[in-house]
Amino acid sequence: MRVATFSIAGERRVGLVDLDAQTIAPFDFSVDQAKSGILALIERNGAGMPRTLSPIPLAQVEIEAPIPQPRRNIFCVGKNYHEHAHEFARSGFDSSAGAGAIPKHPIIFSKVPESVVANHASVLIDPSVSTAIDYEAELAVIIGKGGRGISKENALDHVWGYTIVNDVTARDLQGRYSQWLIGKSQDTFCPMGPWAVTRDELDLATAGIRCFVNEDLRQNSRISLLIFDIPTIIATLSQGITLKPGDIIATGTPVGVGIGFDPPKYLKAGDVVRIEIDGIGTLENRFTEHAQ
Amino acid sequence: MRVATFSIAGERRVGLVDLDAQTIAPFDFSVDQAKSGILALIERNGAGMPRTLSPIPLAQVEIEAPIPQPRRNIFCVGKNYHEHAHEFARSGFDSSAGAGAIPKHPIIFSKVPESVVANHASVLIDPSVSTAIDYEAELAVIIGKGGRGISKENALDHVWGYTIVNDVTARDLQGRYSQWLIGKSQDTFCPMGPWAVTRDELDLATAGIRCFVNEDLRQNSRISLLIFDIPTIIATLSQGITLKPGDIIATGTPVGVGIGFDPPKYLKAGDVVRIEIDGIGTLENRFTEHAQ
Repeated sequence: MRVATFSIAGERRVGLVDLDAQTIAPFDFSVDQAKSGILALIERNGAGMPRTLSPIPLAQVEIEAPIPQPRRNIFCVGKNYHEHAHEFARSGFDSSAGAGAIPKHPIIFSKVPESVVANHASVLIDPSVSTAIDYEAELAVIIGKGGRGISKENALDHVWGYTIVNDVTARDLQGRYSQWLIGKSQDTFCPMGPWAVTRDELDLATAGIRCFVNEDLRQNSRISLLIFDIPTIIATLSQGITLKPGDIIATGTPVGVGIGFDPPKYLKAGDVVRIEIDGIGTLENRFTEHAQ
Repeated sequence: MRVATFSIAGERRVGLVDLDAQTIAPFDFSVDQAKSGILALIERNGAGMPRTLSPIPLAQVEIEAPIPQPRRNIFCVGKNYHEHAHEFARSGFDSSAGAGAIPKHPIIFSKVPESVVANHASVLIDPSVSTAIDYEAELAVIIGKGGRGISKENALDHVWGYTIVNDVTARDLQGRYSQWLIGKSQDTFCPMGPWAVTRDELDLATAGIRCFVNEDLRQNSRISLLIFDIPTIIATLSQGITLKPGDIIATGTPVGVGIGFDPPKYLKAGDVVRIEIDGIGTLENRFTEHAQ
């Protein structure tokens, strides 16, 4: 099942995407229910699927982020692919590099909910704040059933589904402030979408993840290459933090980010970053200069 | 003005505290408005003060955290008093110590909103998760008027008021996971209150901050000794992250935390931690073992 949050005639709705027919069938939610995007679906607690209304051509709607306003910061995992951990440790921006390039335990930080923007939305570059903006293609897990002390064995039962996140990062701020929140939470720095898929749609063993900057293939890896897999991340986080339905966990990015190049390839106004994950879809965003 | 969120007869209300009379006068908010605690007041956008209803004896109400459910993670500043920065760097738990004990720029991390608990609520110790739980007495800033690119000169105009936070920390997890979110965000690890005061109630130049563990004075400092003062913190955060009304920023803790002692004085079940800040009040919480 492929579910999108969208707006039509200025009203937010949630619907079932049919890629063959290129349509979206809105769920029969009230305006108030639909405000929280696909959270309205996730939080039904086994009340079953709501009925859908007549499908609308996808071309007639504006796609929004699946959860346009997460209820708390997005959890993110750092340095979670081997080759990326090495390129980051070498870059000089990694305040944790003293502990070795490959982390022994998952590194978890967060992005503020308001950094989320939709597929095709602009990501803002403000040269007065950062001159080292970088992309990070990531699979994001969406929690369905919350819980504390979730075992690795049961972890995937707590996953509602998946979406794509571009964990946009200001490398200069990430290095300067030691903890990563500021460099990761700048306004518009969390493109998410285009939609979410339920967990049955994604084959974690085979799914590829790719990132293109202006059609130049920069990242090309597989979800199966995560250092800490999804069950390990969920078990680690939930050991003492109760996970909630709708929590989002960005799982880390593979090798090939801008700081992996010498000299680094930072993003500039006009660049278009496209991320593909097999089984989910394509998330594409243009970087534009912030109006002063 | 001293404002508390409280419940009476199972209903959440927000009211004006009168310490002399030991009463609280509820604002004339609907049940729905009062759900967000003092956010209902902060978000009035200059609509003026709501009228108050008849005062109730403080002894008859149950005090809740001023903002029981913040809209996003609580921003926190790390290593923001000189002597504490040294004690933490010496402790072996500081993954950023390689950069020197005293930070050159504010270190910002976050705690999840659901870690917030009220004055007198229990803080849970789960020995299966952490055996190194520590207190951190902190002044917390509550943002009134949001904004991006706030200058130091104008920063205090964006402060609605202040409260007290105990930035409870699992030192073992803080060290193990490199980024601090996990060690700081454990369930119940953010006692907040007992209430909030508007900014005119606090004299930043003279206010003292003290922390007692079972009547043993452990921390005894002044807000004026912050390495990065409140205007600097607000200017740094808002440079590229739009601050929102109701955002909470815990400003850091002075010297005297448990890991500053040799051997460290970690908290155990039964301990009571009391934090006092002049002009605000007293936040007191008992640590109890988590039911397995």
